[in-house]
Amino acid sequence: MRSTPTRLRAGSSTADQLTVRRHNLSVVLSHLRDRGPRSRARLAEETGLNKATVSSLVAELVERGLVREGEVERATVGRPGQSIQLDGDHVVAVGAEINIDYLSVLVLSLRGSVLAEKRLALDTANVEPALVLSRLGRLLGTVLRGLAKSDIRPVGLTIAVPGLVEVDTGVLRVAPNLGWADVAVVAEIRRLLGDPPYPVLLDNEANLAALAEIEAQGPERSADLILLTGAAGVGGGVVAGGQLLRGAFGFAGEVGHMRVRSGGPFCGCGRQGCWEAVVGLNALLTAAASEHDPVRDPSLDVEQRLAEIGSRARSGDERVLSAIAEIDHWLAVGAGILVNVFNPQLLVLGGYFAALQPWIAGSLRDELRRHVFAADAGGTRVAFSTLGFSGSLRGGASQVLDRVFQDPTLVEPIGGDRVAHEDVAQEETV
Amino acid sequence: MRSTPTRLRAGSSTADQLTVRRHNLSVVLSHLRDRGPRSRARLAEETGLNKATVSSLVAELVERGLVREGEVERATVGRPGQSIQLDGDHVVAVGAEINIDYLSVLVLSLRGSVLAEKRLALDTANVEPALVLSRLGRLLGTVLRGLAKSDIRPVGLTIAVPGLVEVDTGVLRVAPNLGWADVAVVAEIRRLLGDPPYPVLLDNEANLAALAEIEAQGPERSADLILLTGAAGVGGGVVAGGQLLRGAFGFAGEVGHMRVRSGGPFCGCGRQGCWEAVVGLNALLTAAASEHDPVRDPSLDVEQRLAEIGSRARSGDERVLSAIAEIDHWLAVGAGILVNVFNPQLLVLGGYFAALQPWIAGSLRDELRRHVFAADAGGTRVAFSTLGFSGSLRGGASQVLDRVFQDPTLVEPIGGDRVAHEDVAQEETV
Repeated sequence: MRSTPTRLRAGSSTADQLTVRRHNLSVVLSHLRDRGPRSRARLAEETGLNKATVSSLVAELVERGLVREGEVERATVGRPGQSIQLDGDHVVAVGAEINIDYLSVLVLSLRGSVLAEKRLALDTANVEPALVLSRLGRLLGTVLRGLAKSDIRPVGLTIAVPGLVEVDTGVLRVAPNLGWADVAVVAEIRRLLGDPPYPVLLDNEANLAALAEIEAQGPERSADLILLTGAAGVGGGVVAGGQLLRGAFGFAGEVGHMRVRSGGPFCGCGRQGCWEAVVGLNALLTAAASEHDPVRDPSLDVEQRLAEIGSRARSGDERVLSAIAEIDHWLAVGAGILVNVFNPQLLVLGGYFAALQPWIAGSLRDELRRHVFAADAGGTRVAFSTLGFSGSLRGGASQVLDRVFQDPTLVEPIGGDRVAHEDVAQEETV
Repeated sequence: MRSTPTRLRAGSSTADQLTVRRHNLSVVLSHLRDRGPRSRARLAEETGLNKATVSSLVAELVERGLVREGEVERATVGRPGQSIQLDGDHVVAVGAEINIDYLSVLVLSLRGSVLAEKRLALDTANVEPALVLSRLGRLLGTVLRGLAKSDIRPVGLTIAVPGLVEVDTGVLRVAPNLGWADVAVVAEIRRLLGDPPYPVLLDNEANLAALAEIEAQGPERSADLILLTGAAGVGGGVVAGGQLLRGAFGFAGEVGHMRVRSGGPFCGCGRQGCWEAVVGLNALLTAAASEHDPVRDPSLDVEQRLAEIGSRARSGDERVLSAIAEIDHWLAVGAGILVNVFNPQLLVLGGYFAALQPWIAGSLRDELRRHVFAADAGGTRVAFSTLGFSGSLRGGASQVLDRVFQDPTLVEPIGGDRVAHEDVAQEETV
């Protein structure tokens, strides 16, 4: 995902010059993200761009609210230079999520820090889609008004959903756990927000969570990773050869509906023996607690209910421990299939699976070695997400920020006027 | 896999000029492969290269034995031009395969036609690896001597094996159906062939068969395809987003060891319920015929045995039909998992599955729709390979030819001397 300076010959046309300029802005901005704050001189040295160009690029990035001057950097040789760093105060991206038991919104700064996060417990499957979207619109409205007051500009919003998405049209095709089909989520949210000037995107929650895991690894990221979301549904976000796997028609990663257990329990999709029917959150809760136990009450916050499950497991509750062992077993069966098929570097367990880490980590690794054909599970490592339930939110926001890193001119200069750059023609020829 | 002419500025260095020349040779050669025979004038028009350059490139390709003059093409306007086409008589690639019941070798011309194919029935699992390799070496020797007599030059050899391969070192790590582990196949075959001047490669049979299916589709090929090999083992070759999926450590595509049937039969790998244990050729034969029935005799040719199974099915043999129905059922379960996960454009059934097409095609398509979460099986089409048992051989040979299409200078000029190209500096600047 990193880029190198463009060494095209400038001067052939204005369009080419703007392309070169945009590319070099991206190189400098991405370099600051990947390598941290540094002086203009060091930026020039490391990117291969000349110093005058770097100064001009930095000036433009400052005007656009993307970088700012930081502390003085003491060079070992020569004059100390003013350090340049990403500006975390002006430009943000927003992630939102519609899931079975909750709605949530997260604001991510250009520097990758969370400026705000809100979650609303809501039994979405039993509420009309229009009403759910209206509640999400209100939640977003509150957050966006807060940003406006602080003069912070959103550059885009991505909405994560647990289902099949048409990315191009922003329509949720089908989400059986929500009971939704053909809902024009983007159009409705755009309407509720008064048609904002930035992009509003829709994507599958597992795809976005996989992007978040990749981001969380920093510049030395894995090219082959599978992220499993664990909630009522189980989704898979797959990065293979550095690319998010979407499939020929956008429907890849439906790991929750792999049939792993012949004659197993019925799934929300109507089929029998689907992986998510045996390892989803409901399978755990049904096995771990009686019907009127509060841990099974969808109107209560899911993290609180998982904390209660954890505390019962720690106190040796037999029913809870045997429910976890059953999940562990079937988790390994499905994970074994995925590792045989993809041979990823990393298998990351997210959502509620991460909350079970103390009880399943060791046995899952052992089981995986038994289920995978290649020796030592094909070299695949198992990891547990540290992003909690915010993975999809972060991934959605990162996806929007990534567009800015690729083309910083998407962000208008502070004050609103386009900056004229008369020094464009000075780009060096190599 | 297609390329466009390089429009670099020539003249900066000889290395650059050679790069440009090589690239443009590749453009012309690939264009003739993808679009068929055409005149120099038309080549110039369609590739954007100037006519003098095209003439010089064609002359070099003729000298290297890669293209030749063909029929006169009558243009609608202007003078008729001599048509140029790929030369199928001078340059070939060789594919070889070591599989459970046979060894085989195939010679593929630059034009994609099979010039020779030999198969030797051999119960490889019960013969020492060294002896199997020596038999393969002899088979290859016979074929190569035949080529030498006709003055046909091999540009490389790829050996397909049913197991985990280290592509870089040419070592077969493990192939449980052969009972092989850590066999240095490439080193041994190179030794047996007297260290030939061309590359000898080793790869997984399913990966190579997937490449062959992609090739067979011509220039408008799918970017997302799964090929299933069907023999004693079941392998998967996956092309996702136009790239062969190899995984982080080269062990992707081990679909035969997905656990699809809890408590199912034991697999050659020692595990229980693996897909290949329920849908592999041995599962069919065991269910379809008694122990001493000749269709279960591994020393007989596998295609003859399958023809016998087919003829029994056509005559209404209950035992055979019920064995096929059982294969069909489990084939759909595993295929459903793969389609849920990859959402390919095309799922191609190869090997012995293709021989079952008359009995399973319809029901498999229906079953798949039931097992796949996205509507209408996510748009995935099911196809049956027409390459028979030669898919891996063709894929292996194509892989070698593809290197020539990418860099035609890999093939020495006929006569052996390097051609001097004084016109290199005439490359146009754009």
